[in-house]
Amino acid sequence: MLDVWVAGAAMTRVGKRTERLQDLMAEAAHGALRAAGVEAPDAIVVAAMNPEEFLGDGNFASNAASHLGFAQAPALRVETATSSGAAAFYAGFGLVAAGLRRAVLVVGGEKMTHLDTPRVSELISRSIDPYERSYGATMPALAGLVTRALMANGVGARELAQVAVKNHANGLQNPQAHFRHAVTLDEVLESRMVADPLRLLHCCPISDGAAAVVLTARRAAVRVAGIGQGSDTLALRHRAALTSFKATQAAAREAFAMAGFGPERVDVAEIHDAFTPFELISLEDTGLVPPGKAGRATLDGETTLHGRLPVNPSGGLKARGHPLAATGLAQIVECVWQVTGRAEGRQTQARVALAHSIGGLATNNWVTLLTAA
Amino acid sequence: MLDVWVAGAAMTRVGKRTERLQDLMAEAAHGALRAAGVEAPDAIVVAAMNPEEFLGDGNFASNAASHLGFAQAPALRVETATSSGAAAFYAGFGLVAAGLRRAVLVVGGEKMTHLDTPRVSELISRSIDPYERSYGATMPALAGLVTRALMANGVGARELAQVAVKNHANGLQNPQAHFRHAVTLDEVLESRMVADPLRLLHCCPISDGAAAVVLTARRAAVRVAGIGQGSDTLALRHRAALTSFKATQAAAREAFAMAGFGPERVDVAEIHDAFTPFELISLEDTGLVPPGKAGRATLDGETTLHGRLPVNPSGGLKARGHPLAATGLAQIVECVWQVTGRAEGRQTQARVALAHSIGGLATNNWVTLLTAA
Repeated sequence: MLDVWVAGAAMTRVGKRTERLQDLMAEAAHGALRAAGVEAPDAIVVAAMNPEEFLGDGNFASNAASHLGFAQAPALRVETATSSGAAAFYAGFGLVAAGLRRAVLVVGGEKMTHLDTPRVSELISRSIDPYERSYGATMPALAGLVTRALMANGVGARELAQVAVKNHANGLQNPQAHFRHAVTLDEVLESRMVADPLRLLHCCPISDGAAAVVLTARRAAVRVAGIGQGSDTLALRHRAALTSFKATQAAAREAFAMAGFGPERVDVAEIHDAFTPFELISLEDTGLVPPGKAGRATLDGETTLHGRLPVNPSGGLKARGHPLAATGLAQIVECVWQVTGRAEGRQTQARVALAHSIGGLATNNWVTLLTAA
Repeated sequence: MLDVWVAGAAMTRVGKRTERLQDLMAEAAHGALRAAGVEAPDAIVVAAMNPEEFLGDGNFASNAASHLGFAQAPALRVETATSSGAAAFYAGFGLVAAGLRRAVLVVGGEKMTHLDTPRVSELISRSIDPYERSYGATMPALAGLVTRALMANGVGARELAQVAVKNHANGLQNPQAHFRHAVTLDEVLESRMVADPLRLLHCCPISDGAAAVVLTARRAAVRVAGIGQGSDTLALRHRAALTSFKATQAAAREAFAMAGFGPERVDVAEIHDAFTPFELISLEDTGLVPPGKAGRATLDGETTLHGRLPVNPSGGLKARGHPLAATGLAQIVECVWQVTGRAEGRQTQARVALAHSIGGLATNNWVTLLTAA
């Protein structure tokens, strides 16, 4: 297997965007190519979760490639629900690692805010098990169930809320973030109930945006040290436990095995906090924090920008925003910036970064490890 | 790059199926695994063009993996419109070639016949350029335009019709085919007009079905000798020529370069004949027949089961049917059966087989070369 390098990375500002998705992708893609010093990619992997229903466009790999000005570059689309960006990164990694391509553009994005929230929620909730959906379950409803189980295990309301406080504080330092305002613990604890016990400020927003990286076989400043994917049953009711995600555990095992080092080497992490409890669960599932300790570590400030292990310096899904198929790549963009000293006001002391992405209700998760060369 | 082998292949009967797509995929997938002697894959690549709108299901890689009984196997979905099956094969090939996985199940399928034809046609036509679509263009309308240009170049109505006659004759020998009845030249020439000059019997049907292969790093009876992808502008109006597809030419160049041999070595071919003119165009674009000679070769019987170069022994998209994301894999299944002597009444003398798949209106095409070990 050949070494694979991230030669360039870029993303758009995340938020309510009025541009077309193709234009957002073009901004991110051309930014990443410029950063990589690559004029034209020899292949493109496109991540978009559901352009058919969000936009009415099909054949989106070709659509995007044509719009980017690379109509002759072979392009394919990869989709694994909310982790599609990470999955596309993996597919691009495979092409370079195999020696099939030498400079792959991976670009992901989503445009949703032009639709009304119930419609977006309905479309995203199609990621969950159809049988559970048939009882009216939605993504936040099942996340609420997971949160209840977590609280029954002793995780406190303040621990859940502190994740949002921290990630909003980080978002303040990120010009690309959807939300650039602080929130207090009380504001989180008193925000509107969405899916008991999850409140509005425990949940990520609906966002538009795009992110891109260029993967090369040629040595660059950042190496893909490890990458792993894990899966679990579509149905939540078929799982042995609700308070940890086997899909993350498997992904982390695989990524660390490939990298040849363990979680203790990780300096900074981007974690899939679509709901704040997911950050706590995932910190433990990845091995970054010992089991049962993530809530305490968060309250103690260990995961702040200047803590022992900064988590979601970008603001995470909670504050940077969650433009679905862009998210897995946006996490990797942030990791690249962190390990190469380009994270501006939110810069951490990092040589090794971990990105963690959740697809659906933790059915298809990814862990990617990046190291400064 | 590691050698990649097709260790097992299977598909469902194609046609109007009442089963769920997940059940069709399970039939194909478990058939391929049995044929491969593989108990469980270490990864799954799923091809489905639009399960969101055909079925209302999202997160389909996880959905299918759970249904297949492999909820813990990492799964991702690949989509390139009507060539999604070939694209998924390529992604699986990359994972094995890179050494990332050792036994990848690639399964593709589509279920559409429960929807009415105008709705299916509308959804498939989203593969074409949105601007051209805004003038009311559909996939068959643009294919009609291509056919007109072809006829202006001297291709005759009998040549176009003979493709259907031949492929229906082949379908008679294929128990998996959607259509198992012969058609005559006159029946084709007198069938209902769909998109002038394309008539009903120039067009493939709307079909349900699934197909699967198992790719391994372990030596098996069939080797993937070459694989190539080519792309072209989404917009037909941006192309220099309408009567050949640059995307196929690029895919063929790449596949033959990898294989280290040329078109003269190919014994049998599965060609994307969604419309009969596409078979003629593609025979020339792949280099299997010299430029301008495909119509004549077809009328002369060169491409029949017992001709110099049997083309679409399965019946092709025209008679085997076109269950979208299954099709690229169904072609490969037929090639595997042909080079391993398991094609029953339609068996040809083949050691080297070529599969050719078109995505959208030839925006994203694939050529795959398989050889008997």
